[in-house]
Amino acid sequence: MMSAGTLITLDGIDGTGKSSQAKRLSRSLDDRGYDVLLTREPGGTRGAESIRELILSTNDIDWSPASELLLFFAARCNHVEQVIRPALAAGTIVVCDRFTDSTRVYQSLSPEADAVLEAINAHLVRMEPDLTLILRSAPELAQERVRHRGAVITRFEKGDAHRHAKRADAFDRILARFPERCVAIDADRDPECVAGDILACVLERLGGGS
Amino acid sequence: MMSAGTLITLDGIDGTGKSSQAKRLSRSLDDRGYDVLLTREPGGTRGAESIRELILSTNDIDWSPASELLLFFAARCNHVEQVIRPALAAGTIVVCDRFTDSTRVYQSLSPEADAVLEAINAHLVRMEPDLTLILRSAPELAQERVRHRGAVITRFEKGDAHRHAKRADAFDRILARFPERCVAIDADRDPECVAGDILACVLERLGGGS
Repeated sequence: MMSAGTLITLDGIDGTGKSSQAKRLSRSLDDRGYDVLLTREPGGTRGAESIRELILSTNDIDWSPASELLLFFAARCNHVEQVIRPALAAGTIVVCDRFTDSTRVYQSLSPEADAVLEAINAHLVRMEPDLTLILRSAPELAQERVRHRGAVITRFEKGDAHRHAKRADAFDRILARFPERCVAIDADRDPECVAGDILACVLERLGGGS
Repeated sequence: MMSAGTLITLDGIDGTGKSSQAKRLSRSLDDRGYDVLLTREPGGTRGAESIRELILSTNDIDWSPASELLLFFAARCNHVEQVIRPALAAGTIVVCDRFTDSTRVYQSLSPEADAVLEAINAHLVRMEPDLTLILRSAPELAQERVRHRGAVITRFEKGDAHRHAKRADAFDRILARFPERCVAIDADRDPECVAGDILACVLERLGGGS
């Protein structure tokens, strides 16, 4: 017997702690006996990781916003078809660090391009998360966290404070646009506390635990 | 003073001699004093060539048709924005070996996906050729030519005879669909003869030569 799995995505501006919270969540679900797969975007398959490499590492290639949009979706189609869809079919809970909402926020170009983005999502990707946790943080605090990570700042994390704040607003609009699917998580608290909130929210969606 | 350039694309199934005819055409135009740029798809920029590499060389990555469609367009956006559009603005004749019509034929998936393809083309690429030469060949002759090239058969050239014939039909439908832009060229003749036809056709469009 196959039960349908659950796709849980974590999204938000850089520096909200998405990646570490995604790890914590998958560990907590695993501890509770769930079959969990932790993955990330762009990436999650060899093909998609090679596209990630193309976008991130080759800073000397000047990708236009339109090319970037299409590269992210090429990676996503690969990831969905080869990893996410089969895992869900096998009843797995898939926890994905970033998904389509990031593309909606970071690759928004114009009303026409946004309509193309939605058409690609609806007809080529054909995968909606069951639950999206939007980690919210005051943009200046999030940016401080990115700066203190100590790691090299990747292309995704560049951008001035103004752009950071605009993206935070765009994620708030995602929350308003998809109220059934998206839940706001206040990320400007103790990470333990944030993790507790996220786990409670997920267990509630899963129907109270296993 | 800037005069608008002309975008001429050559298309058709594999083995019709497109690449060598594109070279001949650009040489002939150059000999006549035109400012010509010869380019190809997928490719034409460092970014687009790196996508070409990703699709062609990594045969062990199993790209789905949807991912392939998006990768081709990501490469095309880059090529158009960084090479084709600036060249046309400078009054250059751009001769391009394959363009969107190839994507229409090779990456056609479903009516829904075809509609997405047209939306990407209309809103993200925003570049239509002024003239497209569709090189027509009996599929079995074209396939013979591919086999006798001596080079390693790339991924694009694989496929059985049936698929080859289906693609030839699809290019005939492109001819019927865009009668103003597309001209059929019989490629099953002496290459000199084919080149003469192509040059005449192009010079006519350019208004009788410079």
